[in-house]
Amino acid sequence: MSQIEDRLPWSKEAFTEKLRAKGAYYHIHHPFHIAMNSGKCTKEQVQGWVANRFYYQISIPVKDANVMANCPDREIRRGWVQRILDHDGQGDSEGGIEAWIRLGEACGMKRDDITSLKYVLPGVRFAVDAYVNFARRAPWQEAVCSSLTELFAPEIHQKRLDNWPQYYNWIDKEGYFYFRKRLTEARRDVEQGLKVTLDYFTTREQQERALTILQFKLDVLWTMLDAMHLAYVADMPPYFNIPTQP
Amino acid sequence: MSQIEDRLPWSKEAFTEKLRAKGAYYHIHHPFHIAMNSGKCTKEQVQGWVANRFYYQISIPVKDANVMANCPDREIRRGWVQRILDHDGQGDSEGGIEAWIRLGEACGMKRDDITSLKYVLPGVRFAVDAYVNFARRAPWQEAVCSSLTELFAPEIHQKRLDNWPQYYNWIDKEGYFYFRKRLTEARRDVEQGLKVTLDYFTTREQQERALTILQFKLDVLWTMLDAMHLAYVADMPPYFNIPTQP
Repeated sequence: MSQIEDRLPWSKEAFTEKLRAKGAYYHIHHPFHIAMNSGKCTKEQVQGWVANRFYYQISIPVKDANVMANCPDREIRRGWVQRILDHDGQGDSEGGIEAWIRLGEACGMKRDDITSLKYVLPGVRFAVDAYVNFARRAPWQEAVCSSLTELFAPEIHQKRLDNWPQYYNWIDKEGYFYFRKRLTEARRDVEQGLKVTLDYFTTREQQERALTILQFKLDVLWTMLDAMHLAYVADMPPYFNIPTQP
Repeated sequence: MSQIEDRLPWSKEAFTEKLRAKGAYYHIHHPFHIAMNSGKCTKEQVQGWVANRFYYQISIPVKDANVMANCPDREIRRGWVQRILDHDGQGDSEGGIEAWIRLGEACGMKRDDITSLKYVLPGVRFAVDAYVNFARRAPWQEAVCSSLTELFAPEIHQKRLDNWPQYYNWIDKEGYFYFRKRLTEARRDVEQGLKVTLDYFTTREQQERALTILQFKLDVLWTMLDAMHLAYVADMPPYFNIPTQP
């Protein structure tokens, strides 16, 4: 009896709850992020985070284009394209990537320090590329599912807006535009992503697969912070013990 | 004058020296590897390394199949296929992947502990996948070039054979077959890889590109050990601070 129940699909409500419960593994709980959100990061650590996270920012529209490249459903594409417009900008709107560069400038970096990607750690690059490659090769519905860390994004952006101004008075407040912008966008985006996921993953096996996919994306975000922790907190950047740097 | 010289191609000898000089960044210099080769790793750390490195082992033939999938040159494929036969085995020969499982067993693990991939860290997976994806998407000659860390492999295998038996007497010596096997294979493989690289990257710009590609592969190997260091030395495996593990 209980074995049969174990294989019955969850209701949409129960499945949604299982997805939301994955928030326990969101990178908001990573030691680097906890330190950053409680004012314990140095200027160099915050700058390192902004510069590395920029690689994620520029990869997101490529990830979204891969979703669309695999998706024959016009209605889905009409919705999904908004993400690319949001990040790359369109017409008078400069978009999220430009807003992130402004955040970097507000943190005291030069535009070229950010756009050259010279501070991007290999571990960050490999993690972000794993996400883009997943979207390139998986069925588009699975790629959509992997984006559901957006369920947890409004909270993390709000916490940054609440905490950073008091702790990091050297950051120009103009820089916080990105976080404010994403507060509303992430809430809207997640509605479409959640609907696709609830409609596509319907058997219990598929629903469990969806949780594994969401965990993969959580691993991407966590691993990015692992690389930053090693480089900027543990003082073990790549090749730190080798006299001549590559 | 010096600016013009800066853009002249290096001779094959000088180019080879530049490639060999990249050995300064080989993972033999990573703190985790230094500790492992000087007897300072615990049994659990050695087991962790073997279990994680297994993911690299099983990915290598897939990487090599991607090289061949992009290569229209029959002569090259006739040479390159040997790598797949070496790793996957053929006929009576069990191959390198099976030899690696034997190493894991010699280190006290169960076969299923290794083949299930349950100990593979996300950071290791992302780094290895970056290598496979590079081979999937780059021109085959670039993928060949990325394999040139084999230039430095015989030394690392020899050092393991020299040092491990004295430090880790709990490892069954039968397990060392993989390292002995690769001593000769890596020497032969690198000849083909080096020839392709020297013939294909001929302008100075291309030669510098080859060094960047080799550095990318060095980053893959270094980043794998970073993830293991964080998990097994610094006691920061993924989600270490979260009560319920995923």
